Amino acid sequence: MSPIPGLSRVGLLGGGVIGGGWAARFLLNGVDVQMYDPDPEAPRKVAEVMANARRASSKLVAGALPAEGTLTFVATPEEAATGVQFVQESAPERMELKQMLLQRASTAAGPEVVFGSSTSGLLPSEMQHGMRHPERLVVGHPFNPVYLMPLVEICGGALTSEATKDRAVEVYSALGMHPLRLSKEIDGFVADRLMEALWREALWLVNDGIATAEEIDDAIRFGPGLRWSFMGTMLIYRIAGGEAGMRHFMAQFGPALKWPWTKLMDVPELTEELLDTLVAQSDQQAGAATIRELEALRDDCLIAVMQGLRGVGYGAGEVLDRYERQLFERAGNAVAPLDLSAPLRLYEATVPTEWVDYNGHMNDSRFFQVTSEAGDRLLRYIGLDEEYLTHSSYYTVESHVNFGAQAMAGDRLYATLQLLSHDAKRLHMFCVVHRDADDTVVATAEHMLLHVDTAAGKASPAAPALQAKLAELAAHHSLLPKPAHAGRFVGQPRG
Amino acid sequence: MSPIPGLSRVGLLGGGVIGGGWAARFLLNGVDVQMYDPDPEAPRKVAEVMANARRASSKLVAGALPAEGTLTFVATPEEAATGVQFVQESAPERMELKQMLLQRASTAAGPEVVFGSSTSGLLPSEMQHGMRHPERLVVGHPFNPVYLMPLVEICGGALTSEATKDRAVEVYSALGMHPLRLSKEIDGFVADRLMEALWREALWLVNDGIATAEEIDDAIRFGPGLRWSFMGTMLIYRIAGGEAGMRHFMAQFGPALKWPWTKLMDVPELTEELLDTLVAQSDQQAGAATIRELEALRDDCLIAVMQGLRGVGYGAGEVLDRYERQLFERAGNAVAPLDLSAPLRLYEATVPTEWVDYNGHMNDSRFFQVTSEAGDRLLRYIGLDEEYLTHSSYYTVESHVNFGAQAMAGDRLYATLQLLSHDAKRLHMFCVVHRDADDTVVATAEHMLLHVDTAAGKASPAAPALQAKLAELAAHHSLLPKPAHAGRFVGQPRG
Repeated sequence: MSPIPGLSRVGLLGGGVIGGGWAARFLLNGVDVQMYDPDPEAPRKVAEVMANARRASSKLVAGALPAEGTLTFVATPEEAATGVQFVQESAPERMELKQMLLQRASTAAGPEVVFGSSTSGLLPSEMQHGMRHPERLVVGHPFNPVYLMPLVEICGGALTSEATKDRAVEVYSALGMHPLRLSKEIDGFVADRLMEALWREALWLVNDGIATAEEIDDAIRFGPGLRWSFMGTMLIYRIAGGEAGMRHFMAQFGPALKWPWTKLMDVPELTEELLDTLVAQSDQQAGAATIRELEALRDDCLIAVMQGLRGVGYGAGEVLDRYERQLFERAGNAVAPLDLSAPLRLYEATVPTEWVDYNGHMNDSRFFQVTSEAGDRLLRYIGLDEEYLTHSSYYTVESHVNFGAQAMAGDRLYATLQLLSHDAKRLHMFCVVHRDADDTVVATAEHMLLHVDTAAGKASPAAPALQAKLAELAAHHSLLPKPAHAGRFVGQPRG
Repeated sequence: MSPIPGLSRVGLLGGGVIGGGWAARFLLNGVDVQMYDPDPEAPRKVAEVMANARRASSKLVAGALPAEGTLTFVATPEEAATGVQFVQESAPERMELKQMLLQRASTAAGPEVVFGSSTSGLLPSEMQHGMRHPERLVVGHPFNPVYLMPLVEICGGALTSEATKDRAVEVYSALGMHPLRLSKEIDGFVADRLMEALWREALWLVNDGIATAEEIDDAIRFGPGLRWSFMGTMLIYRIAGGEAGMRHFMAQFGPALKWPWTKLMDVPELTEELLDTLVAQSDQQAGAATIRELEALRDDCLIAVMQGLRGVGYGAGEVLDRYERQLFERAGNAVAPLDLSAPLRLYEATVPTEWVDYNGHMNDSRFFQVTSEAGDRLLRYIGLDEEYLTHSSYYTVESHVNFGAQAMAGDRLYATLQLLSHDAKRLHMFCVVHRDADDTVVATAEHMLLHVDTAAGKASPAAPALQAKLAELAAHHSLLPKPAHAGRFVGQPRG
């Protein structure tokens, strides 16, 4: 029982990196796969891609994937295409090989079965030559890793029917991909042409000793590559043109086409006609969005991408992480000594859009997160540092949260912390989250933490230095009134 | 009192999109700015960039920014450079204009003050002509929006001193940027050459009617652009080459350099020497990382970028969001009717790496998040849908969490929900989070929710249909034993 209607079994021709990636996409969407690949190593290679894909997909779409389909290796292209609803060809880039596989497999598949080819640049009009029902061949060009990358370019040959393209779009969409329907057949299609142009320039830079492989990559991933992950070069340049849009941008940078800014000087003539086409297409692409709106969208995407990468600690995420630590240190240097006679103001945050849920305000779990962050700052304040974490830490064992008011995206919040009690192993704190604008209490949280010997995995007394710092704080905070919400249970009437 | 040591005041020459972006970077890092721009509109333009930058930076680095520096407009380049520790020039791309500004400003700045130029491609050796102390001019080429993009290319001219480059790296790093030091001076530097190559190919595609502006952008942002946001073309191709690395990749795709996969056919000759250089540089770049490790890193970054973009609902994030909703719907179609005689199993998740904190296991706030998500599923189950959300919703008012065991990255969790009580306005639930592998209870959470008329902003009775669904569930769940941890307060001895 496949969870994708009308797609329970597919045939794959070729099980390399790309064919294995297709196998993973189909299998993880609950579709059975019949794979033909004469390479005796194919099962091992596909298993390796599957291991990567399982790991990646479970991270990407937590918990939502159906039961995996079944993978069967078969001995001939005909067998791969028997009894299936779709065939994908991912053989090496040799026209005769692809033609042979498609011809043989097409004799075994029902006439309604659509064939997609993963070719990076060969023309479908040539590939469909000699096929039984050649009208059902279409290029479905994916990108590596196929189990994660959304793009698949759809390109038909001279004989390809519109119904074939429709079906390919339907199949690839059901796998979570983004089909891009090309209107013209061309060597290399669109994405590979753009990649190839950049690649050729990169080879020049290495060839001429201008930049190394690493420098070239850094020039991409810390720069234009960040933007290209959500907007292409056309929209990015439109925004750079400001209110006056693409025509203004071209007036400013059009002359650069005559300059030696690349070794690839076969540029098109910037005629009035090309300029008009470009401006009209750019207007169409931007639709009703103003430059200000596009700028805000661009910025939100950049922030999201960099914050995402910070979670991995790589590329621009590493830069952001380092920057935040710099800011933290500078702020620490600038801050006056803490006033122990009041709850400690240890943490501030501005509500990002990602914290907002379907109710249009900050999600309840994010309040918990803010109080948890504030608790971390207290731990750092009493002396818990990286060295200390190598053997011990505090774990939260019990928490109680009261929600008082809403917080919106952009609201600036600050959290104050009161130490309620402590002993050698326990730390009992109360945290109040305020809205900075009017000091409204938006939430409170009471946390009980336990000191843990992390190697032994059990409770242990905190180091004397930490206990001393806690005792110093307690001497002050024990004089503060107990917060009204401390010690509550859920459902207790408000007093 | 600047928070950046040795950088309290800078001079900026030019206040367009780039100059305004620099102003924002400096001001938001607490540095005072003296700006020269003869355009009477400059103050308005810079204010617009600042508004964008304030919004973006507060999202990017929540709460950590120092007090803003002060922006002053001055009447001459000399005034801009007086009493500052650094000067950045961002005038239009005309050599004579840049030379004039740099000459004049350099007469007013102390000899130790470094000058950065934002030029996209003019040569520093020419720009420094006529400057007082020309050795302190360096290109510091940023990318738009300057207040967010990390990359800045550092390129010296014939007279530029190493100390000047060192200082530029120091200044830009303090602003949270990633300086890339180029070893050779070349028109367009590195990033712009790569962008320009891609851009020229894109213009051919429009010129030849192969693809529209929108199609070109889609081919980038759903495909190679996603990868370029964290790995450049060199490392991506190395990974594509598999265990055999770059030499294997070139053996496979080197011939394509002779194919018409772009209109830009001035490719370098693929000599043994170029191949050796390429392979050696690729090995150096990859360091000790195996292909498997690089694949895992690539996949983690792709996931992080797509999940980040899902928060914005744009580009690949939109595709992912649609895919998840497809999966949710398919899963819903496949699931047997819920068994009401037990706590409802409504939510599953696999712990992603981002949920893990410095203790090496899932952060406490993420347990709260899982129980909150489970609660949302209950709300959907009783009939709260998009239409309902236009007028009413349930808000969490009080929560209590107990932490039982740790969860690690990759652990599969599931949550079960028991309705403890309800009335027209209130909904009292108990959620248990289990580890799937051994059914261990890792956390429990008790939540009290209040039904709210969202327009009026106050408590209101739930719609009869929702109440009926709750009553049906309560008829079953009231027979279940009360969970041991329900009704606890923090610090209560375990019974």
